[in-house]
Formats: sequence, structure tokens, C-alpha cells
Amino acid sequence: MPLYIKYIENLINEFKRIPGIGPKSAKRIVYFLLKQPATDIERFARSLLEMSSKVMFCKICFNIAESDVCSICNDETRDKGRVCIVQEVSDVAIIESTGQYRGLYHVLGNLLSPIDSIGPDEIRIPHLLKRIRQLNIDEIIIALNPTVEGESTAAYLKKIIDPLGIKTTRLASGLPVGGNIEYADEVTLSRAFAERKEF
Amino acid sequence: MPLYIKYIENLINEFKRIPGIGPKSAKRIVYFLLKQPATDIERFARSLLEMSSKVMFCKICFNIAESDVCSICNDETRDKGRVCIVQEVSDVAIIESTGQYRGLYHVLGNLLSPIDSIGPDEIRIPHLLKRIRQLNIDEIIIALNPTVEGESTAAYLKKIIDPLGIKTTRLASGLPVGGNIEYADEVTLSRAFAERKEF
Repeated sequence: MPLYIKYIENLINEFKRIPGIGPKSAKRIVYFLLKQPATDIERFARSLLEMSSKVMFCKICFNIAESDVCSICNDETRDKGRVCIVQEVSDVAIIESTGQYRGLYHVLGNLLSPIDSIGPDEIRIPHLLKRIRQLNIDEIIIALNPTVEGESTAAYLKKIIDPLGIKTTRLASGLPVGGNIEYADEVTLSRAFAERKEF
Repeated sequence: MPLYIKYIENLINEFKRIPGIGPKSAKRIVYFLLKQPATDIERFARSLLEMSSKVMFCKICFNIAESDVCSICNDETRDKGRVCIVQEVSDVAIIESTGQYRGLYHVLGNLLSPIDSIGPDEIRIPHLLKRIRQLNIDEIIIALNPTVEGESTAAYLKKIIDPLGIKTTRLASGLPVGGNIEYADEVTLSRAFAERKEF
């Protein structure tokens, strides 16, 4: 194989590692990048390296941070009695954007999945329990996706937090605001019925 | 905006520049990359830089190359009397993989598109004409996509090549092998009828 084809193949392989990018898309992306000026590619590579070297993870909650501790854990005005458990750092950003929540977070980084050998240790449960014991917590809010893995991780969390005598809540499920009953799936509609509220 | 968010935003912007990757996908990709080990990200960045610095373009046909001239233009056994005109370097790779063609190539890099101000100069037509005059060419094969832009670029090429007294051909259009008449679109089916061959 000529060397220049090896360089192209290498880059195609890098893109193929990204979930959601298949072999055809990876090829298409690399042939697009081939046509871009060298300065653009250098800026792309620099952005990758900067992201990787400069973005750190908070040692308390595993949110993204500029130093050891993230800006939320460092913020004295946040409500230290509430911890919101999320799967990904991107979920922190989304919840922060609502401006509704002033407590702390705990980022699991993954969901329990016995089939992929992801157990409690892999989703930082021991760290969470240690944190709960150290803090004076009133409420733990479980904000995981309402999927099979999300629900079973939520159930597991409730089981281990309940004996500690701390209230656990989870985000409401139901019809999306602006949504249409006609298009709601049956599980969502059933849950919206079961959890209906006085009006 | 905190600095670490700037680094993430920068990388999201790099991915958003790639056609077919929207803002949501770009975000998803970057949050995936954030979780990868630093060595993986360094390898990704190195692949980008290597591709950009080591892959060159042939000064004769604009195919990808390791030096000034590509391996096809350098190959003495290729048929110098045939030039196949394609849009992208990826098309060269695909045609080569059939093993059917032993002539030379000319990569346009784009198609005529007045609306995007892509005229003959932008698709290397002057260079093509110079090349045609220097070589002793029997046949020019137009292998552009059978899309509106591809067809109009093909028509333009035929118009400027015809006065030079060189035969131009183009790839056959028709039903894909293994395809199904029922699923063929009307234009493809009409062309398959118009260009039917004795059996």
C-alpha cells in the first residue's frame, strides 16, 4: 500500500471510531478534509489537542473543569444540600441552561449495563456514597434518561440510597411540552396517566 | 465564558464545518472525544496533520500523490491515449478498484455551478485543455455523477472538446446491476429505454 493511502486510511479509521460515523461517512469526511487548506487542518488538530489537554474533570463531581474542582463545586452560593445525578457532562450543561437548579451534580459517566460489564464501580458509585456520607444532603435528584438502562440504574441508586435516609426524587416523565398526545408512545402516555396531577 | 468551555466550543465548531455534521452531532462527537484517553486524541490529531502534510496532489491530473506526480501518471504501462474526467480523487480510487480502466485521469475537484460562482477556471478546465493539446489523445471519458450539475458540466466539456476533434464518451446510465425495475426512478428507467442495446 502506498504511504499516502496509509495516511488516508489512518484518518478514516480515526473517524470510524466515533459512534454514529460509519465507514462511508468516514471516507466522505476524510476526502472533504483532504481538500481543505493546511491551516484549517492544523487548527482542527490544535483544537483536538487543546480540548484534550486543557479540559479536566472535577475530582468531586466529575463535571468538566479547568482545574481539580469544577466551577459548580467551587461556587459558594450553590445549594450543598442537593445533588443531581446525571449520566454525562453534557447533561450538566443542559440542566444548567434551564437556570432552574442551584444544587450540586454527580456525573456517573455511564449507566449500569451487566452485558457490557459496567457495574457500580465503573459508574463511580463508591465515590458517590463517600460523598453522600461526607455532605449533609437533603435530596438526591436522579436525572437519568428514561431508557431501560437509565431506569435500571435509577432503581439501583434508589435501593442503595434509601437505607441512608435521604430523599430521592427523579425527573417527571410525561408528555413533552408542546407535544401531541396523538404522537406520544404508549409507555410515555401510560406514565403521564399514572403520574397525573391535580389541576 | 470559562476557558474550558471555549476549548470545547472550538472543537464543536471544527466538526460543524464538515458537511453532513450538524450542531447536535458535533456536540455529541466532542462529548464522546472528551471521554477518550489523551493518547487516542493525540493519535487522532497526528493522523490529521500527517494526512494534511504528507498527501500531495499530482500536478498533472490532481489525483492524490506522494510527490509531484501521482503513481498513475508515472506508470509507463498506462494507456496515454485515454483520459477519464472525474469530479473527486475518491472517484479515481473507485474506478481503479474495478480494474477495467488502464488510461489516465483528470480530477476536476468540483462541478460547474454558476450559483456558487464555480466556473470553468475553478474546475481546472484551462489546465485540462493544455493537457489535451500536449498529449496525443484518442478518447476522453466523462465519468461525472448523473446529477444536474454533473450532466451540465459534462455537456460543457463536450462542447469545448468536440472542436479539438477528440472522441468523448460518457459512462452508461441505466438500471443498476442487481437492481429492480420496480424501484428504478423514472429518469433512470427512461434513459435505460433510450439507450437500450441489441442483445
